[in-house]
Amino acid sequence: MAVEFTKDIFSEVKSHIEDNDYGRAADVLKHLHPYDIAEVIEDLEDMAIPMLFEFFDAELSAEILAEMDNDDAMKVIKNMKPDLAYKKFFVQMDSDDAADIINQLSVDDRKTFTDYLKVNLGEEALNIISLLKYDEDVAGGLMAKELVRVNVNWDVKACINEIRRQADDVETIYAVYVVDDSGKLMGLVPLSKLIVSKSTAKISEFYHDDLTSVEDTTPGDKVAEIMQKYDLVALPVVDFRGRLIGRITIDDVLDFIKEEADEDYQLASGLSENVEYTDKVWVLSRARLPWLFLGLLGGIAGSEVIGLYEGDLKFHPEMAIFIPLIAAMGGNAGVQSSAIVVQSLAAKSINEKGLFTKLGKEFRVSVLNGILCSVAILAYGFVMIDSLNLSFTVSAALLTVIVMASVLGAFIPLVLSKLKVDPALATGPFITTTNDLLGLGIYFLVGRLMYSIDFTAIF
Amino acid sequence: MAVEFTKDIFSEVKSHIEDNDYGRAADVLKHLHPYDIAEVIEDLEDMAIPMLFEFFDAELSAEILAEMDNDDAMKVIKNMKPDLAYKKFFVQMDSDDAADIINQLSVDDRKTFTDYLKVNLGEEALNIISLLKYDEDVAGGLMAKELVRVNVNWDVKACINEIRRQADDVETIYAVYVVDDSGKLMGLVPLSKLIVSKSTAKISEFYHDDLTSVEDTTPGDKVAEIMQKYDLVALPVVDFRGRLIGRITIDDVLDFIKEEADEDYQLASGLSENVEYTDKVWVLSRARLPWLFLGLLGGIAGSEVIGLYEGDLKFHPEMAIFIPLIAAMGGNAGVQSSAIVVQSLAAKSINEKGLFTKLGKEFRVSVLNGILCSVAILAYGFVMIDSLNLSFTVSAALLTVIVMASVLGAFIPLVLSKLKVDPALATGPFITTTNDLLGLGIYFLVGRLMYSIDFTAIF
Repeated sequence: MAVEFTKDIFSEVKSHIEDNDYGRAADVLKHLHPYDIAEVIEDLEDMAIPMLFEFFDAELSAEILAEMDNDDAMKVIKNMKPDLAYKKFFVQMDSDDAADIINQLSVDDRKTFTDYLKVNLGEEALNIISLLKYDEDVAGGLMAKELVRVNVNWDVKACINEIRRQADDVETIYAVYVVDDSGKLMGLVPLSKLIVSKSTAKISEFYHDDLTSVEDTTPGDKVAEIMQKYDLVALPVVDFRGRLIGRITIDDVLDFIKEEADEDYQLASGLSENVEYTDKVWVLSRARLPWLFLGLLGGIAGSEVIGLYEGDLKFHPEMAIFIPLIAAMGGNAGVQSSAIVVQSLAAKSINEKGLFTKLGKEFRVSVLNGILCSVAILAYGFVMIDSLNLSFTVSAALLTVIVMASVLGAFIPLVLSKLKVDPALATGPFITTTNDLLGLGIYFLVGRLMYSIDFTAIF
Repeated sequence: MAVEFTKDIFSEVKSHIEDNDYGRAADVLKHLHPYDIAEVIEDLEDMAIPMLFEFFDAELSAEILAEMDNDDAMKVIKNMKPDLAYKKFFVQMDSDDAADIINQLSVDDRKTFTDYLKVNLGEEALNIISLLKYDEDVAGGLMAKELVRVNVNWDVKACINEIRRQADDVETIYAVYVVDDSGKLMGLVPLSKLIVSKSTAKISEFYHDDLTSVEDTTPGDKVAEIMQKYDLVALPVVDFRGRLIGRITIDDVLDFIKEEADEDYQLASGLSENVEYTDKVWVLSRARLPWLFLGLLGGIAGSEVIGLYEGDLKFHPEMAIFIPLIAAMGGNAGVQSSAIVVQSLAAKSINEKGLFTKLGKEFRVSVLNGILCSVAILAYGFVMIDSLNLSFTVSAALLTVIVMASVLGAFIPLVLSKLKVDPALATGPFITTTNDLLGLGIYFLVGRLMYSIDFTAIF
């Protein structure tokens, strides 16, 4: 079994590196999984990284590099001569991983690399070049060229010979893909089927023709959706003529799915970039400033709204006391309803009901919650607030704010989605800020109404 | 290729069902992927569902049921006689899917089913029973019993015979697992290796012994982490003696990963349950009420804080104008820093730095952002606000609030994580509410200080 990566091992490696004893550090690391080695290397000083790689053979080096973040991996190769980088890393890597890293380089560095690859016409070099043209978030950018392809006219024996020939290049084989003479994808044969078939059996007689495939231009989120829906571990990719050109494996899509989920969470939390705690201070600062400034603008707009009602505040200064409550409740209710809509849109059920049906439902939910909250605050008011006018103002404003903020919170992501904009943009600071303003306006308007009533005469 | 699921097909099925013509509806559905059929069935009236299943054979019925949400699937079988349900669905299903559904039943119904399974001693029944004892979020609850197991002393030919024997039961075979005479897991052989080996070769000579496995009690999030880290499509599960008892496939973990990400998002958005837009009004209402009431309590506490400074507000009523700005900025800054910590904790890098190092970094980031925001609001104040005292109050309070809210926002999830509580609980309404209160207190304290200074004498 591979050695488990413990804190002790980490300290041991660390101390070897501090002593500049890269050989011993590498000896310890070699027994770990490449993923764990990559984790360690990403934390090292830039200087130390090439020194350490000296001690790894080409196969392990390639595995480590493939596990590193693309921008860290780019740093490793950007100062290397193309021929060295090619022999040390790219020959042994899956073509998609190599292309991802080269795509991170600056325009000049990328050209140096691709020029070298074009001259060095190995099969791997051609595979990498053909992938460089794709965006990283379409099927072509997610696929690897390595796969086992068999002709529909072959027999089982020929298939097995082909697998034997390619077993070194293709890391994980779940199935062999069946193509016709023109390279068009016809179907697949699972390995388990191949293994139990007679060696003289014809592929054409037992291959599965009901397979799912995507074109190279299919967006990544669609790819992820298909693979999740149909529980696929590998998905073949075809060109516009239906010819088999690559294969996407589940591990590449897993990263994609996680990134998508993380992005929604970041938008909801007011982060504009994908940042980690280990990033530099100014990177962390930059990711947060846009939403902070938006909040600032919202706060200034809020001050203008209150300014409009300064007269009311002068007559009823006790109204100030519940400003934060109204603003916060509008924000909370709005974010909740946005989030439910965003998640339901992501789950994509095909039987979409109309916009008004959805908003109608949100209206009913929010009226129910609004009434419960406003009754609660009214009860509190009767006991704790001297002014009946204020109690009724807060209670009535709260109901109105919860209903309007909720309906608005549902409406905005639904509209964004119709406009093909990411509905998750609606959640977080955006909806909170909008609803703060809405809440303040409602509060003071309701206040004017409620303070015009003589409740003491009624009760 | 399987027929693609379009809106046209959906309407066709719908109209057949409205005509009570279940046979024709089933004829159309049969050509779809079981996942899509499940989607359609989940939207039908409870009455119609058993009628439709009459027209599907046992294999397809089992596939559809396995694709349905567990609670919807439970509704399908809860009124069926155990023997019928067993023959129609469970015999054909993977043991883990069957156990998940039976676990959803009420205590009485579950007993009826397990009693029946115990009497009907087929291999599948035993497999299901052995899984019922596990929680759904540990390795034992995620695994299926179906896998291909070979003895380390066998040769390739014996392996292939075993695969042939089990090919019908085990849906997806990526590798065969190698055990010793006592059933202890020794390693695995990828199918691609088996296929290219001579039939007389001994398994003991070429099996991989460096495989990763988990115990049945391993938590689901740990399972998901391992499979993602090491790019595994299947992970063997062993008991406390190291004996092979099951296998987790990536599709089961994918759902788990998605649910985890969704849960974080829901916590950040103030939802206490996993709800969808299609759920009933009162379910949607119930999921939101806890956080709304928390917000209400926070708002009331906020009103108490302001109440403490009612005297200040009477002297300087213009201070009320910036209450929403201060409260909102505290909330935003806090949520941002919580979210970064929560995501970094989820990514789990092993080289944890100390608590104070992390808080120190958050302090630097927030001081930078706080200064930028407070300079911006000061500039606005010079132009737009008459009172210098108010301008300096808002500016100084803003800096203090951003720094304190950010540090608190980082501190709470770090502490929760140390206490083994889900740190995502800290994000969303909880941190927003806390920071609202913090912000108000700071604002009025700073106000007292700033209004004691005669700025007109200075400038």
